[in-house]
Amino acid sequence: MVVVDTDVHNAMKTKYDILPYLPKAWHEEWLEMGMGIARQYYSVVGGARKDANPDTGGGPGTDPDFMIRHLIEPNGIDYAILTSGIEISLYPDPDYANALASAWNDWTVEHWLNRSPAFRGSIAINNTDPQAAAREIDRMGSHPGMAQVIMSSASRMLYGQRFYHPIYEAAERNGLPIAIHPGGEGRGIAPSPTNAGYPTRYFEWHNVLPVSYIGHLNSIICEGVFEKFPKLKFVAIEGGISWLPAMMWRMDKNYKALRSSVPWLKKHPSEYIAEHVFLTTQPIEEPKDHKHLLQVFDMIGAERCVMFSTDYPHWDYDNPMMALPPMPKELKRRIMGETAMELYGLPRPAETGGTAHG
Amino acid sequence: MVVVDTDVHNAMKTKYDILPYLPKAWHEEWLEMGMGIARQYYSVVGGARKDANPDTGGGPGTDPDFMIRHLIEPNGIDYAILTSGIEISLYPDPDYANALASAWNDWTVEHWLNRSPAFRGSIAINNTDPQAAAREIDRMGSHPGMAQVIMSSASRMLYGQRFYHPIYEAAERNGLPIAIHPGGEGRGIAPSPTNAGYPTRYFEWHNVLPVSYIGHLNSIICEGVFEKFPKLKFVAIEGGISWLPAMMWRMDKNYKALRSSVPWLKKHPSEYIAEHVFLTTQPIEEPKDHKHLLQVFDMIGAERCVMFSTDYPHWDYDNPMMALPPMPKELKRRIMGETAMELYGLPRPAETGGTAHG
Repeated sequence: MVVVDTDVHNAMKTKYDILPYLPKAWHEEWLEMGMGIARQYYSVVGGARKDANPDTGGGPGTDPDFMIRHLIEPNGIDYAILTSGIEISLYPDPDYANALASAWNDWTVEHWLNRSPAFRGSIAINNTDPQAAAREIDRMGSHPGMAQVIMSSASRMLYGQRFYHPIYEAAERNGLPIAIHPGGEGRGIAPSPTNAGYPTRYFEWHNVLPVSYIGHLNSIICEGVFEKFPKLKFVAIEGGISWLPAMMWRMDKNYKALRSSVPWLKKHPSEYIAEHVFLTTQPIEEPKDHKHLLQVFDMIGAERCVMFSTDYPHWDYDNPMMALPPMPKELKRRIMGETAMELYGLPRPAETGGTAHG
Repeated sequence: MVVVDTDVHNAMKTKYDILPYLPKAWHEEWLEMGMGIARQYYSVVGGARKDANPDTGGGPGTDPDFMIRHLIEPNGIDYAILTSGIEISLYPDPDYANALASAWNDWTVEHWLNRSPAFRGSIAINNTDPQAAAREIDRMGSHPGMAQVIMSSASRMLYGQRFYHPIYEAAERNGLPIAIHPGGEGRGIAPSPTNAGYPTRYFEWHNVLPVSYIGHLNSIICEGVFEKFPKLKFVAIEGGISWLPAMMWRMDKNYKALRSSVPWLKKHPSEYIAEHVFLTTQPIEEPKDHKHLLQVFDMIGAERCVMFSTDYPHWDYDNPMMALPPMPKELKRRIMGETAMELYGLPRPAETGGTAHG
């Protein structure tokens, strides 16, 4: 069975790693302001697995060789979709953020994609400057190791709005899905994590992250993004999956009465979702009764849209051997790797003579 | 079978109706600013059923006698829980809003509760001044026709936060559930309807309303409201029900790792939900396959927590005869009326010698 891990967080060992790729004008700002957008919620269990610190030094996710030994080989993972540089759009200065995105992508290619074909990258962009983001997608899109474009699910505006369409046009042109990933909610220039302000603690903040996905997916469907960009695919990483049925059904029910206000839509919202939307598993919901999750799989057609992920090296990592409940073999095969191979156009490992990283 | 309709919108015929109950100091503001918080989303099908205009004049929901003839009698409804004055907390001035809430409640008693015991009221409050809201709950709470306290799901702060606890203390003291109702999202002093700003159209705005419920319920659980007020019940009106399983499971999963940050919680979040949270049906999700909704009912224990509602006279009214899919008779009995009779302490109609409104 091919295993594709669709959410693996790589990182820089030190803040100096990006400097060779970043124009000198921005070095002082980067060194002074630090590596990433400041957090205000404290996780009592830390952000990463304690055993994910490489024996070669550096923090979790910073060493490609250690990641191969610690995550990829023991779990029989054929491909790891790397997800980093996600929150670049949350800086207030679009010029700085544009420069950071380019530097981040060059670093990803040199330190990760050149290390092993098992690593596949996500193109970091600054979506507060959609024209610049489109140019960055065009610059990196032809690299065979780049699997998708990535953005934070935290945003000042809903992602269906036409402001963002140049990004989708570029992604479609380059045959790349757009992925969103949570964690930036309430940070940098992102608004409060809920429509009623700030949750109090990390636990509460983490629980409520799916609302970003509900808002963005709704906006993308209603604004007709998939009519305008019919080949575009959208990946909802790390947002859970069980919120989707309620949303599909609510949109379809309202569509019956209100569709004259969205005349560009030619199908029920759930049909666009079935054709264009993918979700990754971690953190998969764990109802007491396994059958409830399988029922959710049935409601959303999981054999088409659900892709396995570990979220390595984060604290809430899902183990590939243990995370999912027993299910029909063909469904498991789709979720563990087949759907991701199709979506990302990954060569079957056997065809390359063994596992991709071997 | 007893039928309780847990979401029926009554309204004033004209803006002059409230004046006898409102201190004169506020008359000019009320008459100038209009009856209610301005809307910015336009529904292409209107806000109300076209056939709900009383033959006696006035708008939908304004005439108790017409409502009895149009909604209650033909559908065999024994009790209608009236929901109005919901958005009073969205005015910027707490003194004005406090005065309006009191006037609204006095008008409800005189024009609706005094008309028929089939009508049960919701106590309007201004929750931006929780001490005043608590006094209003104490003032109205002993009226036998008042069934609950009502607030908008649109709010500047999440409802678990301690700012609001005086309201919950008063509700518990008076044996009244707290209900929230959507529709104020983005209006008055409420923030944007999503955590990424404003949806574009009414269709999109209406689809995304459940995110308010997810945020507030999460906050109420995590902040320990139900440990502090163990008899308090919480009713989520008109938010749908199918979003609940995802939230329960996500909260329980995170609780395993992060509970040291919420040491006041003594149970899994889903256990608090099972003991304290109720949902009303309209707009009930309508999956293509009926069995999917019954599976959701099973996931959340619908026999305990789901209560029927029509949302009369609004455009998306659910017909009591047609709204729900076929289901076991006992489950239907619970949903159509038994659970609401228990929650609101309503006398069984037979005991009063026929239907309550007869």
